[in-house]
Amino acid sequence: MQMSRLFAPTLKESPQEAEIVSHSLMLRAGLIRQVSAGVYTFLPLGLRTLDKITNIVREEMNRAGGQELLMPALHPADLWKETGRWQVYGPELIRFKDRRERDFCLGPTHEEVITDLARKEIRSYRQLPLLLYQIQTKFRDEIRPRFGIMRAREFLMKDLYSFDRDVEGLKESYEKMYRAYCRVFERCGLEYKAVPAESGVIGGDVSHEFLILAESGEEKLMVCQSCSYGTTREEEVCPQCQTHLEEKKGIEVGHIFQLGTKYSEPMKAYFLDRDGKEKPLVMGCYGIGIGRTMAAAIEANHDDKGIRWPVSIAPYEVAVIPVNSKKESHREQAEKVYRALLEQGFEAVIDDREASAGYKFNEADLIGFPFQVIVGEKAEKGGMLEIKIRRNGERIEVSQEGVIQLLRELKKNHGETREP
Amino acid sequence: MQMSRLFAPTLKESPQEAEIVSHSLMLRAGLIRQVSAGVYTFLPLGLRTLDKITNIVREEMNRAGGQELLMPALHPADLWKETGRWQVYGPELIRFKDRRERDFCLGPTHEEVITDLARKEIRSYRQLPLLLYQIQTKFRDEIRPRFGIMRAREFLMKDLYSFDRDVEGLKESYEKMYRAYCRVFERCGLEYKAVPAESGVIGGDVSHEFLILAESGEEKLMVCQSCSYGTTREEEVCPQCQTHLEEKKGIEVGHIFQLGTKYSEPMKAYFLDRDGKEKPLVMGCYGIGIGRTMAAAIEANHDDKGIRWPVSIAPYEVAVIPVNSKKESHREQAEKVYRALLEQGFEAVIDDREASAGYKFNEADLIGFPFQVIVGEKAEKGGMLEIKIRRNGERIEVSQEGVIQLLRELKKNHGETREP
Repeated sequence: MQMSRLFAPTLKESPQEAEIVSHSLMLRAGLIRQVSAGVYTFLPLGLRTLDKITNIVREEMNRAGGQELLMPALHPADLWKETGRWQVYGPELIRFKDRRERDFCLGPTHEEVITDLARKEIRSYRQLPLLLYQIQTKFRDEIRPRFGIMRAREFLMKDLYSFDRDVEGLKESYEKMYRAYCRVFERCGLEYKAVPAESGVIGGDVSHEFLILAESGEEKLMVCQSCSYGTTREEEVCPQCQTHLEEKKGIEVGHIFQLGTKYSEPMKAYFLDRDGKEKPLVMGCYGIGIGRTMAAAIEANHDDKGIRWPVSIAPYEVAVIPVNSKKESHREQAEKVYRALLEQGFEAVIDDREASAGYKFNEADLIGFPFQVIVGEKAEKGGMLEIKIRRNGERIEVSQEGVIQLLRELKKNHGETREP
Repeated sequence: MQMSRLFAPTLKESPQEAEIVSHSLMLRAGLIRQVSAGVYTFLPLGLRTLDKITNIVREEMNRAGGQELLMPALHPADLWKETGRWQVYGPELIRFKDRRERDFCLGPTHEEVITDLARKEIRSYRQLPLLLYQIQTKFRDEIRPRFGIMRAREFLMKDLYSFDRDVEGLKESYEKMYRAYCRVFERCGLEYKAVPAESGVIGGDVSHEFLILAESGEEKLMVCQSCSYGTTREEEVCPQCQTHLEEKKGIEVGHIFQLGTKYSEPMKAYFLDRDGKEKPLVMGCYGIGIGRTMAAAIEANHDDKGIRWPVSIAPYEVAVIPVNSKKESHREQAEKVYRALLEQGFEAVIDDREASAGYKFNEADLIGFPFQVIVGEKAEKGGMLEIKIRRNGERIEVSQEGVIQLLRELKKNHGETREP
């Protein structure tokens, strides 16, 4: 992609409305724009990162045996009345009447809709265990939408629902998801911690939160430096950890729940078990906030110049920057490197704009391309290029023949974890 | 994917509520399920086809220079009041108040939101032309939702918006999109026709509809057998076509509009032109109904046994079917072929269920896998397999060594058109 064509309107100053750094940087780097309080448009660079996180999540859900489907945002109130949540859910639930005066809501979560599907389509224990998930837009009328996409009213979620014969089955599905979540956040290049949690409005007995560790996090947790156990609850610290505790802060990006029969009982989602008896499906549910993960990744990976994306979720991997766009030799050499990168499967941009070197370097740092290939005086007549690693500021000189190989190695060393 | 694990609940009988064949087949083949009138869940097989059409559309929009973004479904009423459409749009527009009593609607189209973005971010002619698009869920409270996902209340659309300096620029962007649309429907393996059309509530002067030709189509059109010109309006038939006219029926799946300044004028979306003057952006908009294309593809491609997917949009390309699942030799041979197919990059299922051969053949025909590899008696001891081509019913015997090569050729001949 040529930067002269890319629709990525950047801002010099931090906008007033931004209360936290990820919000400010997403606006400044041209990743998002606000449409209304808590309602955002993802611009091309922002959408690319959103899609990368989505794809990692999708691959790991599939690997764990999940099957993807897509449920609607429009939910008939009848389903929510069956579980009693039509009454329980507060004004966060966006409600309206359709043209025939029937009550509807916009789904903030899909337990009712998936349980309705399950009771109609799951007949026998032979169909179990079953893991169904979607990556879909949800709605919640937050009393105070804030922090950009961190607490939005419209947001992208992955929600998976597990169906099992019994509690043992549920525990296995839960374990599978727990491990899948660990893989997701590892592959996103993020430091995370799973901690036992309260179940809240979703319900059920056992649940864990997944937190991205970041200094700006709102949740306090204690992590054992010896065994790496983490918890948000002081009373849960095991005696042998007491002397190794460190306090950290985290941002919740995922939550997994053992629901049991909380939804299948009231909605009569039964199956015929091997012993010939009708039993309620034993369920779990498992959510990841995709946009929230993106914001948390920035909270955990930035400096005063801008974003420092982990390679696996950066909008592009490499920016090629000719120092002096007016010099034909710089432009030509840069173009050559850029084409070679594209041919070799790198996701690259070229900053072909007529702007000062300083302006281009600053923008590249702000947007946070993991690697910058700088084409300057030395590059003339086939000479040396410079690679700047955004994460640590390191600069490496490399010959034009060696640039592809070096970038391949850097990608590996800096957390390239794309998988089949 | 193993059919024993695949969540694809099929139905023997056509459900009563299905008024047209695509609706019936999508329910019977386990592609969709209804949640409420005009509101559907896409099950795994249905979502795969939806994603394939989406990806073809995305590749062609990118190839034409489009940049993808993602706008919200929640639209503040203020924007719609600026263009007057808050008043003009009827009860199809789903409206509600948020918890602070502010008016919102669920976007049935995004001219207001994109024009708001454009007026804030496009300053100079240097940023033009600009093509921005999204693939996103839209809402329309149809007075009579029917025909399954063909006329739904919640539906997936691709909508692209072009921004140009002047009418000449708009015409170029429009031409580009016209050609991109032709490529999309060709790659989906569908017979289509572009015809001049009315602009309706979207507005503007020039517009074309893209119709998929199908006997069950609701729009009558005349196609010239000599020059392939098509039109829905009798008065537009050119004299030299008169003697070559054939009547066809079509289903509208795409619509492109030259909007001009219909939205940029009232919303004051101006840019600074080369001559130093402020001018309104000249816009076009271009929609494709993704779910609608899927339904139309079935209307145009089915027989009394089920769906006959074009290869490029089939949920899977190949089904491997052991004739007798109880025979270990059949199961083993089938498993071997299945693994070889996956290794070679085919999208394949294996019907590993304990069911009669007839049941499995019927299901494969219903779901419409383009190629069935049948592993029966002859396959024992490394003998011959049979390939059945769903589209024309042709059967070909092939050795186990030759099956991959033959399937590759069949894919090419039967409309494999995937592109970079």
